[in-house]
Amino acid sequence: MTSTDTLGTSAAQARGAELEQLIRKDPGQFRVLTGDRPTGRLHLGHYFGTLHNRVRLQDLGVETFVLIPDYQVLTDRDVAEHLQEYVAELVLDHLAIGIDPDRSTIFTHSAVPALNQLLLPFLSLVSVAELNRNPTVKDEIAHSRQSAVSGLMLTYPVHQAADILSVKANLVPVGQDQLPHLEITRTVARRFNDRYGRGTEVFPQPEALLSDAPLLLGTDGTKMSKSRGNSIALSATADETARLIRGARTDAERRITYDPAGRPEVSSLVLLAALCEGTDPHTVAGEIGDGGAAVLKKRVTEAVNTHLAPIRARRTAYERDRQVVRDVLRAGNARVNALADATLQDVRAAMNADY
Amino acid sequence: MTSTDTLGTSAAQARGAELEQLIRKDPGQFRVLTGDRPTGRLHLGHYFGTLHNRVRLQDLGVETFVLIPDYQVLTDRDVAEHLQEYVAELVLDHLAIGIDPDRSTIFTHSAVPALNQLLLPFLSLVSVAELNRNPTVKDEIAHSRQSAVSGLMLTYPVHQAADILSVKANLVPVGQDQLPHLEITRTVARRFNDRYGRGTEVFPQPEALLSDAPLLLGTDGTKMSKSRGNSIALSATADETARLIRGARTDAERRITYDPAGRPEVSSLVLLAALCEGTDPHTVAGEIGDGGAAVLKKRVTEAVNTHLAPIRARRTAYERDRQVVRDVLRAGNARVNALADATLQDVRAAMNADY
Repeated sequence: MTSTDTLGTSAAQARGAELEQLIRKDPGQFRVLTGDRPTGRLHLGHYFGTLHNRVRLQDLGVETFVLIPDYQVLTDRDVAEHLQEYVAELVLDHLAIGIDPDRSTIFTHSAVPALNQLLLPFLSLVSVAELNRNPTVKDEIAHSRQSAVSGLMLTYPVHQAADILSVKANLVPVGQDQLPHLEITRTVARRFNDRYGRGTEVFPQPEALLSDAPLLLGTDGTKMSKSRGNSIALSATADETARLIRGARTDAERRITYDPAGRPEVSSLVLLAALCEGTDPHTVAGEIGDGGAAVLKKRVTEAVNTHLAPIRARRTAYERDRQVVRDVLRAGNARVNALADATLQDVRAAMNADY
Repeated sequence: MTSTDTLGTSAAQARGAELEQLIRKDPGQFRVLTGDRPTGRLHLGHYFGTLHNRVRLQDLGVETFVLIPDYQVLTDRDVAEHLQEYVAELVLDHLAIGIDPDRSTIFTHSAVPALNQLLLPFLSLVSVAELNRNPTVKDEIAHSRQSAVSGLMLTYPVHQAADILSVKANLVPVGQDQLPHLEITRTVARRFNDRYGRGTEVFPQPEALLSDAPLLLGTDGTKMSKSRGNSIALSATADETARLIRGARTDAERRITYDPAGRPEVSSLVLLAALCEGTDPHTVAGEIGDGGAAVLKKRVTEAVNTHLAPIRARRTAYERDRQVVRDVLRAGNARVNALADATLQDVRAAMNADY
C-alpha cells in the first residue's frame, strides 16, 4: 500500500491554472467540496483565504458543497460544549458572504449516516503505516490540546475521503499543507475502483484546486487565528474593527511600503486594504507614502468596514431569524443524505454486500 | 486515557456464575450481542463453543442479537469475493440450530448506517496508544493474510463497541481472548457517559459472559478451523461426517481413556461423543475401553450424526427456500436500524449535535 502518484505542489499549481480554464469553460462538470471546522466565527483570514473563492466558484456555476465537519471537533472538549452555537455561526457567515443555499449545499457530516458509514470500507483500503506518516495529521497531533492522540485524529484523512467521496466531489480547494490529505482521498478512490469497480469508476479521483490566496497576518504580526485574539471576525462591528486595527502592530519606519518579506506587519495591513478595495497593494502603499501608520490604519479600517458592510448587514438580518439556519442545514443535510445514500448503494453493490 | 478497571479472567469467571443466576431469575433484564465473521460454514467447534449457548440464552428468554460483522472481513480479499454466500450460510446455520427470528435478531452491521456512524464519536474516546496495545488486535494482525495492517483492523475494537452499544446490549458472551476487546467497549461506554451523559447513563457497560465451553480439536489434533480442513461443518452430510471422523488422528494406545492433557486427540473425540450424547466423557471412555479407536470413531460418528440430524434437516429445508434468508436479514436489519437510529439520536442529543 504505497502511494504512487503523489501530486507535488508545483504540479498542483500548474494543474490549478488548467483547472481554472476548464471551470470557466464548463463549470457543470465540477463538483466542489470544501468546509471549515466549527470552532467559532470566521475572520478576515478565512474570508480572503478561502471563503471568497467559494462564492466565486458558486457564482461561476460550479456545484458547491460546504461541509461543517462537526464530528472532527469532538476531541476538543471546549469546542464540543459550544457545538450548536459554532455550527450556527458558520452557517450565518456563509449566508452573509453570499453562499446561496438554493445553489450551494451547506451540511454537517454528523447528520449523514451513510457518509460516515463509508469510513468502514475506506479504512480497509488504507494501512496504519500510511495513516501514521501523513504529515498533516502529524502536525495536527503536535498542535492538539490533548495529550493523547485519539483514534479519530489518526483516521481523520479517511473520514475526509468519506466526506468528499460521499457526494462524489471531483474538485477540492486546498492549501498546500492539505495536499497529503487529499492524496489519501485519491488513494482510497483509486483502490476502491481497482478492487471493487470491475472496470467501472465508482469514485472520481478528486483534484486539488490549489489556493493562491495571499497570506494575511493577525494584528500582532503572527498567523491570524481566533484563539490568538489577533483576528478580525467577519461579524465584528465597525467599531470593533476600528479598535482592532488601531491596535495592530506596525514598525518604526514612517514611510509605508509593500514589502511582505522585509516588513510583514505593515505589508499585511497594506494588503488587507488592497484586497478590500480590489486594488494593488503597491498602489495603496504609494498613495499613503509618508502618511505613516496612522493614515494606513485609517485607510484599512475604512476599506474593511466598507467591504464588509453589506456582508454584515446580511448577517444581522439572518441573525434575527435563527430559523433560517435550521432550515438551511435541514435542506442541506437532506440533500447530502440522498446523495450519500445513493453512493452507499453503489458501494454495497460493488462489494457484493447488497443483501 | 488508561483503563482503570480491567476485568481479569478469574474475576470474569466468578462474575459469570453470578450472571447465570441473574439470567435464570430475570432474563428480561439482559440483552445479548454475539456473532461470527462471515467466512464460511460453521462447524462443530463453533457449535459446542458458542452457538449452542446462543440458543440456550434465547430459550431462557434473553433477548439475543446475532451480528454478522460483514465489514470486518473486507480486508480479506478471498472472503470479500464470496460475501453474499458466506452471509447466507451463517443465517442458514443459525436458523438450523434453533435461533428463532421471531425471538432473536440476526443482522449484518454493514446494513445499519447509524451503527457505523457511532464509530466516529467513539473513535474520539480512545487513544491510538490504546488501540495499538490491544492484544487481540495484535494477535489478529499477526495472523492476518495481509502484509500491511489496515486502518480497519486497528480500529476494529471500536467498531465492535459500536456494534454492541448501538443496540445497548449489556451482556456479551466471549472467550477469554476477547476480554481485552470487550474492555474497550466498556471504556467507550464509561467515557461517553462521563463526558456527555450529564449524570445519566447513555450506555450500559456491557459485561462479559465468559464461556466455559470445552475445547474441541480438529481431526488432525490441532485447533479446529475451516481453513485447515480439519473441521466437521454443521452442514456436512452424514457420509462426509463419517469419512472425516474415520480419518481423525488418534494414538498408538488401544485402551480409550479421557485424558485431555496426555492424550489430546483421543480425548477430543471422546468429548465430542459425550457432548452429542449429553453424557460425561469419562463414561464414554469407560464404555469403549479396549474397543480401541475403531469403536470410538464409530460411536463418535453415530453420536454426531444423530445429534445433528434434526439440525441438518432444518438446514436442508431452509436451503430450498433462499427467500427465507433474505427475509430474516431484512427483518433483523430493520429492527437493528430502528434501535441504532434511536441510539444515535441519544448520542447526538448528548453531544449537543441535534440540529
